[in-house]
Amino acid sequence: MTITPVIMSGGAGSRLWPMSNSQTPKQFLPLIGEHTMLEETVTRLKADLFDPKMVLLAGTSQADLIRTQLADTNHIILGEPCRRNTAAAAVAAALYVREQSPEDDLLLLAPADHVITFPGAFHKAVEKASEAAQNGYIVTFGIYPESPETGYGYIKRSESISEGVFKVEAFKEKPDEETAIQYCDSGEFDWNSGIFLFSADKFIQEMARFEPKILEAVKEAYAKAVKTRDLIALDEEAFEHSPSTSIDYAVMERTDKAAVVPCNIGWSDLGSYRSLFDVRTKLELPSHPETAELLNSIDCLVVSDGPQVNIVGLDNVGVIVDQGRVLVLNLDASQDVKKIADIHKKSPA
Amino acid sequence: MTITPVIMSGGAGSRLWPMSNSQTPKQFLPLIGEHTMLEETVTRLKADLFDPKMVLLAGTSQADLIRTQLADTNHIILGEPCRRNTAAAAVAAALYVREQSPEDDLLLLAPADHVITFPGAFHKAVEKASEAAQNGYIVTFGIYPESPETGYGYIKRSESISEGVFKVEAFKEKPDEETAIQYCDSGEFDWNSGIFLFSADKFIQEMARFEPKILEAVKEAYAKAVKTRDLIALDEEAFEHSPSTSIDYAVMERTDKAAVVPCNIGWSDLGSYRSLFDVRTKLELPSHPETAELLNSIDCLVVSDGPQVNIVGLDNVGVIVDQGRVLVLNLDASQDVKKIADIHKKSPA
Repeated sequence: MTITPVIMSGGAGSRLWPMSNSQTPKQFLPLIGEHTMLEETVTRLKADLFDPKMVLLAGTSQADLIRTQLADTNHIILGEPCRRNTAAAAVAAALYVREQSPEDDLLLLAPADHVITFPGAFHKAVEKASEAAQNGYIVTFGIYPESPETGYGYIKRSESISEGVFKVEAFKEKPDEETAIQYCDSGEFDWNSGIFLFSADKFIQEMARFEPKILEAVKEAYAKAVKTRDLIALDEEAFEHSPSTSIDYAVMERTDKAAVVPCNIGWSDLGSYRSLFDVRTKLELPSHPETAELLNSIDCLVVSDGPQVNIVGLDNVGVIVDQGRVLVLNLDASQDVKKIADIHKKSPA
Repeated sequence: MTITPVIMSGGAGSRLWPMSNSQTPKQFLPLIGEHTMLEETVTRLKADLFDPKMVLLAGTSQADLIRTQLADTNHIILGEPCRRNTAAAAVAAALYVREQSPEDDLLLLAPADHVITFPGAFHKAVEKASEAAQNGYIVTFGIYPESPETGYGYIKRSESISEGVFKVEAFKEKPDEETAIQYCDSGEFDWNSGIFLFSADKFIQEMARFEPKILEAVKEAYAKAVKTRDLIALDEEAFEHSPSTSIDYAVMERTDKAAVVPCNIGWSDLGSYRSLFDVRTKLELPSHPETAELLNSIDCLVVSDGPQVNIVGLDNVGVIVDQGRVLVLNLDASQDVKKIADIHKKSPA
């Protein structure tokens, strides 16, 4: 058994604006250490467990960026001509994998912009999940919650299928703080990491049941795709007809074959400056450049592409300087950065 | 009677770093409106009360900056070859004024970088002070305290000499907060504005009594000065020998001829980003450029020489972007900016 790694590189990049933006979303940035998030993700998926040929789901316009970063990696790009969320993208990947290896069609669907600091533990979790996936389960990876985070979805475990694998009782949207505390306190909930392992054929079956319009549109887009050496460019007109929804909504919340493998893999989605600061702190990486001066200031995150930064008398503040933009934020208001990014999208400077 | 305006333009400029610095101290910046502080000061001193020829006390190296800003003003620059604080500078001005008009030798000594938003009230206060000055008093202008500010010196009033003019009972250094509250509450104290009115001859007499070394050194520097059309460059070797101390220490705290005119002239020394924000707010000037985006943020000061600034979820914060430097500060820690400026003075980028 081998598993085809499918990397989703479709993020819009507004939560770490201005560093990350629609031209250069965060998977193409070296946010933790010297390699980009995409490069780190690829490295993590180069393991015996996985097929050495990676599938990249990405906007067609970003094919060149991906080629540059994956020069040394055997890969094929599945080019999305427009954004249709994760369900449609996953269908395209499933169609490709089923076509390539109909007898051995497990695929691991992983976002390109997540941090996993314990790759060994991650590989073990994937192994654990693979038997269930071969038995027709659509397996997600649950993260033991470290805090009552309101920025993540939660998964409630049900009975055990096999050692360390559980049926899913319910998927829960991002909760309010009180609910998040209850979830954590119950011991029955994990964070929804957005990483999936499943059989391509089983996934296509479930999509046929729950979202036939998506399946039909993507099938047509795939059939009419323009194929070159390293790119399968999905047909725009057909793909545009697909409804836009997430894998969670389309399948996971409806199927009776949802399973979860709770795990401790040092995961973060780096979905905010708060989490970027937290991950850097955990990894004992500096949270500001050496040239920055902090006076009577603690727990501050500084990122700058040049200008020298000084902070006086402030705690828990982020200062981001990038391409002539300066963002100063209360790290506890990190979720609001998206709103600022949206303002600038509407009226670019 | 006319009064010679003497503008002290010798500030080192570290309290509003990085906007203001030793190359371009704050008197040369347009901090309030479109004119520089120096230009505003000059405009304020163009009044019937004053001699139309202004005297500028400034570092010799800044003569060109002054010439540019005072192109339309009749002026002479008294060039200080090195910093020797206000007492030595005031002696040089007094020597010049006594030489020019021995019979009518009152001079108004005013810093170049203060805000006075009620110039009419200021002129009336100067008129009030001039009779006392003609009678040999060295008059300071006291500002009715708006708040128990710990960044200013205070002056305690004694008995009245004439309508609105008081003998000084004591000068007090920058107090701690508790003491400042007592001062304000007593109703007997005013802020020390650092603006003076006196007879040149009387001032020289008092300096002869209290600080003969300063007087001798400056007399020699003045006698040996190199004079050109608009510049009297004090002799460096002689001037260097002068002790360095303030007018307050040298004369005001010792003489029995100290007087104060308490007044309400809309004064600020703009000595911190806190006061820059306060003055802009009082004058209903914007506290940030139109291009700045503030989200869930109030009472923030933004100054930028180009880069676009965004603030998320922070109150009472200043963001200053100037020549490749970014300063982010708690406005209540404004006094600490000097320390950051000092760090950079020691190790320039």
